[in-house]
Amino acid sequence: MDYQKVSLEKHFEWKGKIQMTSRVNVDGKESLSLAYTPGVAAPCLAIKENPELSYSLTRRWNTVAVVTDGTAVLGLGNIGPLAGMPVMEGKCVLFKEFADIDAIPICLDTQNVDEIVATVKAISPSFGGINLEDISAPRCFEVERRLKELCDIPVFHDDQHGTAIVLAAALKNALKLVKKDISTARLVINGAGSAGIAIAEFLILLGARDLTVCDRKGIIDDSDDFNAAQIALAKRTNPRKVRGTLADAVKGADAFIGVSVKDALSQDMVRSMAKDSIVFAMANPTPEIMPDLALEAGARVVATGRSDFPNQINNVLAFPGIFRGALDTRASEINVAMKIAASNALANLVSDEELCDSYILPKAFDSRVADAVAKAVADAAKESGAARI
Amino acid sequence: MDYQKVSLEKHFEWKGKIQMTSRVNVDGKESLSLAYTPGVAAPCLAIKENPELSYSLTRRWNTVAVVTDGTAVLGLGNIGPLAGMPVMEGKCVLFKEFADIDAIPICLDTQNVDEIVATVKAISPSFGGINLEDISAPRCFEVERRLKELCDIPVFHDDQHGTAIVLAAALKNALKLVKKDISTARLVINGAGSAGIAIAEFLILLGARDLTVCDRKGIIDDSDDFNAAQIALAKRTNPRKVRGTLADAVKGADAFIGVSVKDALSQDMVRSMAKDSIVFAMANPTPEIMPDLALEAGARVVATGRSDFPNQINNVLAFPGIFRGALDTRASEINVAMKIAASNALANLVSDEELCDSYILPKAFDSRVADAVAKAVADAAKESGAARI
Repeated sequence: MDYQKVSLEKHFEWKGKIQMTSRVNVDGKESLSLAYTPGVAAPCLAIKENPELSYSLTRRWNTVAVVTDGTAVLGLGNIGPLAGMPVMEGKCVLFKEFADIDAIPICLDTQNVDEIVATVKAISPSFGGINLEDISAPRCFEVERRLKELCDIPVFHDDQHGTAIVLAAALKNALKLVKKDISTARLVINGAGSAGIAIAEFLILLGARDLTVCDRKGIIDDSDDFNAAQIALAKRTNPRKVRGTLADAVKGADAFIGVSVKDALSQDMVRSMAKDSIVFAMANPTPEIMPDLALEAGARVVATGRSDFPNQINNVLAFPGIFRGALDTRASEINVAMKIAASNALANLVSDEELCDSYILPKAFDSRVADAVAKAVADAAKESGAARI
Repeated sequence: MDYQKVSLEKHFEWKGKIQMTSRVNVDGKESLSLAYTPGVAAPCLAIKENPELSYSLTRRWNTVAVVTDGTAVLGLGNIGPLAGMPVMEGKCVLFKEFADIDAIPICLDTQNVDEIVATVKAISPSFGGINLEDISAPRCFEVERRLKELCDIPVFHDDQHGTAIVLAAALKNALKLVKKDISTARLVINGAGSAGIAIAEFLILLGARDLTVCDRKGIIDDSDDFNAAQIALAKRTNPRKVRGTLADAVKGADAFIGVSVKDALSQDMVRSMAKDSIVFAMANPTPEIMPDLALEAGARVVATGRSDFPNQINNVLAFPGIFRGALDTRASEINVAMKIAASNALANLVSDEELCDSYILPKAFDSRVADAVAKAVADAAKESGAARI
């Protein structure tokens, strides 16, 4: 199927992929007087007395804002807020489908960091959580950091953390399969944008020590070729001080983790990797190397972002359950413990018996996923003190 | 029924009066690829090429934000954004029930005019219109004026204009009944907040000449007792230069229009009014004078804001149809012509044969109302040039 062509036709038919519906009938004087004036004064005053009741008397307990400024939409770049809306509506559909969350798309008419922060902070009382989406790096780091400080509800940039959580689950299982350990494995990340940097940070947390990160200009270092976030990361990675390009970085590597562009990884580069190499080629829609070419060149475990190949690394495995768990515990944030719990829960859904080169992660439509992730995140929220109920 | 008590119980049961639902099924790889990646890139790029397609390829064409800062919620005053949410959700239910509009409640964590304006402007690409709600006067005037300048979608403060439109329809029919003319009738408004000032402005537009406006401190004038909006209005009203209190203003008046507080109008004041006097006592939940007392004191046509008395003056008669008409024509604003059209359409739903002292306006649940208002507003949008389709 020509997905682009059919999708455009379908979008004209749909006229919007989400809608607001009422949960109460207002069909006469009495019901109007209960759902609206004069009766509605009572829940208003109850919340005024006890703000926590906003989670019991309104939809806040189940509502997440999906916020973008349109600067990094899919692989399309800075296409602006209006053009970003079809993706945000789609994300809201997934929130509903996978975790029964009411998600509301908010596309912002500003690309200024201060204004984004002020706007999201200002609308935050309407929501139980904020999912930041498709905001370009390195701006996304500051936006998220400042909002996490300002807001008392979870703020989660899915392109960073959702990707890192699913990738880490896949890597955990792939390393188990090839009997290597994350603390000694040589890991290479290609792409030092929001996803690449978040993956690196998360893998370090999980114990990775020999991690090298590349961007278009080669292995990141502290030179002017790289932005502040990349320079900061460079100081904490690349312990063997490798210099040069991606080809230099992947020599002898145990795993390649691509969040970059198509054709970034050649067969020769794969051939230069260690035995039982792992290739995660997540560029969308065309991977850094096609799976058949990677396997032919000697890779053992290959994953992509696509549903038409084995081992799809897809954020939908993480964000619905993560927000479900955070909302269910009225968590003040989505902290490291919750992210690690989500990643482990995901990895553990593949049993040792099932685990094989072509099955390292549960499928996107595996109905166990959201519940398992939600439960793990809720438990971690309680243990870590983020939970408020 | 004790509406307050039952409403609070119901709100605990409902756990939110609205929810987001999907309009598409995402139940497998193929549907996911159409509603989300990779297919969704096509509608994104189509909107990037032609921003107007945001009205065809996303839900924008039918979506309105209901925005408050929580400073003037019902008669409860400044109860803040969280406590205002039950009212905003209720309003969204009414938008859906009466005009099939997807309305999204946005409660703001700021009461600063500059920040409110910046926030609403920033989120405006996500919506086809903005309904401002329960923002205190005189701040509401500046917020609306600046947003109307900044946004290319309709911005409508319902407490001002919705109230004025319905009131004007009621007054038109009441004056017809008592055979008086708006241009010669003596009209008194009590309450110079957002509703009172908007009513005064609208009645002047409709031809009122002898209009006197009172606030707590008496008849408004250019003294320091009043704010800038009230002083500006004082200069354009009170042609006979009456001084003093409400009691002085209503002597010989043909109509009293109350948007103030309970018991503001005494029977003696009603007795001092002209023959066939009109008393619109719209204070909520307790009117400026109870209908039986007003009638006993000689008033001929009495209306209130309540559903348990005849002649309910209720904003729900206006805002759903007004936004329906504005959205259907993709209007850039809700202008004076559209507001007058809405008011006249509402008045005209009461035929000359039906018109009587206890029936000057259609009922809130009259199913003809929203359609009639929407059609009139759409026609006026086209004639006035506000329509974009």
